[in-house]
Amino acid sequence: MIQVLIVGGTHGNERTGVQLIRRLQASSTELERNHFVAKTLLANQLAMANNRRYLDQDLNRCFSEELLSNIPENREQSRAKEINEQFGPKGPNTQTDWIIDLHTTTANMGITLIVQQNDPLALDMALYVQKQLPGAVIFYEDNAPTTNSFLCSIAKHGFLIEVGPVAQGLLRWDAFEHTRQALSHALDFIDLQLSGQLSLPSIREADVFQFTEKLHLPRDESGEIIGMIHPQLQDQDYCKLSPGEPIFILDTGETVLFEYHEPVYVAFVNEAAYYDQAHGLSLMRKRHLTWTD
Amino acid sequence: MIQVLIVGGTHGNERTGVQLIRRLQASSTELERNHFVAKTLLANQLAMANNRRYLDQDLNRCFSEELLSNIPENREQSRAKEINEQFGPKGPNTQTDWIIDLHTTTANMGITLIVQQNDPLALDMALYVQKQLPGAVIFYEDNAPTTNSFLCSIAKHGFLIEVGPVAQGLLRWDAFEHTRQALSHALDFIDLQLSGQLSLPSIREADVFQFTEKLHLPRDESGEIIGMIHPQLQDQDYCKLSPGEPIFILDTGETVLFEYHEPVYVAFVNEAAYYDQAHGLSLMRKRHLTWTD
Repeated sequence: MIQVLIVGGTHGNERTGVQLIRRLQASSTELERNHFVAKTLLANQLAMANNRRYLDQDLNRCFSEELLSNIPENREQSRAKEINEQFGPKGPNTQTDWIIDLHTTTANMGITLIVQQNDPLALDMALYVQKQLPGAVIFYEDNAPTTNSFLCSIAKHGFLIEVGPVAQGLLRWDAFEHTRQALSHALDFIDLQLSGQLSLPSIREADVFQFTEKLHLPRDESGEIIGMIHPQLQDQDYCKLSPGEPIFILDTGETVLFEYHEPVYVAFVNEAAYYDQAHGLSLMRKRHLTWTD
Repeated sequence: MIQVLIVGGTHGNERTGVQLIRRLQASSTELERNHFVAKTLLANQLAMANNRRYLDQDLNRCFSEELLSNIPENREQSRAKEINEQFGPKGPNTQTDWIIDLHTTTANMGITLIVQQNDPLALDMALYVQKQLPGAVIFYEDNAPTTNSFLCSIAKHGFLIEVGPVAQGLLRWDAFEHTRQALSHALDFIDLQLSGQLSLPSIREADVFQFTEKLHLPRDESGEIIGMIHPQLQDQDYCKLSPGEPIFILDTGETVLFEYHEPVYVAFVNEAAYYDQAHGLSLMRKRHLTWTD
C-alpha cells in the first residue's frame, strides 16, 4: 500500500496549511482516493501554539542526513528525528512514498509548486497540477538528497505547495482554497499514476524557475536595515528584473538600482520570514526543463 | 517648550513605525518645526528583537491608572512604568503634550487616524491630517482617561496613526510612506496651532467611525477556529455590512450570513494580532461628530 503524508504547520505561523489539515482530519473523504488514504501530520505544534515559524531553528532545515544522525541540539532537531522515525527513515528504506508539505509566503507568488530534487515523478506531479491550475508556477531546485534538509526529503518523493500572498498568522479564503485545490490535484495525480491512467509522453518538458541566490536588503555598517523593496518591484514575483531597474528604496526615499551582470527573475519578494537574515528577495533563472522516467 | 513624542515599536512586529523612527533619528531635520523639536521612542525593544507584538502582555494595554500604580506583574507592565516615569506621569501633571504612536494592521484600512478620547485638539489634528490626505479615515473612541490603557494616554493629547494592509514583520514602501506623510502633517498641525495660524470654525465636524464590538471567527465546541472571513468581506474595511450578507466561510466552504439587528460598518477585518482571541473583525458605527474647543 502506497503511503502518502500531507503535512501542515512545518512553519508554525503559516496557518493555511494547519487549517487545511484540520479540515481534512474532520472530513476523511477528502483524504481518500481509489488506491490510498492519505495520512496527515501537523509538524511543529509547539511553534504553532506560539504562532512562530519555529522556536529554536527552522524545522524545514533539519532533515539533512547529518542533522538526523547527530544528537539533537534544540527542539526542532528533536522533532525532526521524531518525524523521521515515524515516517522515514530518510533514504532508500523510507516507509513513506510521498510527502506533500503545505506552506504559505507573504510574497505575491500565487500557487507555487516546489520540486526540490531532480525527481521525474515529482516533476510529473508539478506538471499535472499546473495543467489543472493554469497560472501555477513550477519552482525547481536540484538539491542532493543527502544534504537536502527539507522535511519532505525523508519520503521517496517530496512536493511543496507554497501559496501567497498571505500574512503570517492569519487565514485568507483565497490562499486556503488555492492550497486545497493544488493538494487535491496532487492526490489525484498519485491515484492516476497508480492506476496506470496517466499517458505521459516519453519526454516531458516545462518552463520552471530555479533559485540562484538571495539578495540582502540595504543595510548600514552595523547591519541595520535601512531600506526596503522598491514599490515598482513589490508584488512582482516571477517578473523579470534587468540591470539598471529599481530594486530597493532607502528610508530616505533614494532609489537603488539593480546592479548585476544579466537580467534575472525574482521570487520571495519581501518574504517576512527572511528578515531574520535581512534577505529581501530571491533571484531565479527561468529554465526550459526536459525530463524522462 | 511644548513636548512632542513620536513612538514606534509599541507592537514589536509592526516594523513600519520602527523603521520610520530610525529614519527620523538619523535625519533630525524631519523632527524639527518652528516651535519644537519632536522626540522619538522605540517603546518595546524586547518585543522588536523577537519580532513579536509583545512578550507577556500587549504593551498598548498597560497604561491604565490602575496598572501604572500596581506592582508590575510582567515585562510589559514594567516597561509601561518606565515609559510613564520618563514621559508622564499620566494625568494633569504629565510632562508630555503630545504622543503620536505609529501602528500598522494586516487589515486593508488605508490610513486610519485614531483618537481615543473625547479630546477636541486631537480631533482637530485628525481633521487637519485628513484634509491633507483625502481618503484617510478618522476612528474615534470615547474612552475615559483613567481607564484608557493605551500608551498615548499618558500625554495631554494622544494620536495614533494606523496604516494597512501590511503583514507583521515586514516593510512595504506604501505603508511606510503613508505613515511618514500622516506623521509629517500631524507635526505641521501642532506647529500651526502653536503659531496661531489655524483658523478653525467654532464648531468643527467630521464623519468618524466608532468601535462597537469585536466578533469571533467561527469556532467549534472546543474553541478551535473552523472558518475565516468570507472572501466578499475580506479587504472591505470601512464598508457597510448588512444583516443577511456573507460574513464568514467555514473550512468546508459553507457561507455564514451576518445575523444582526442593523447594518454596521466593519474594520480590522482579518487582523492577525486578534487571532489570539479568535476575533475576526470589529464592528463600527458611522457618526457625524461635531465638537468645539
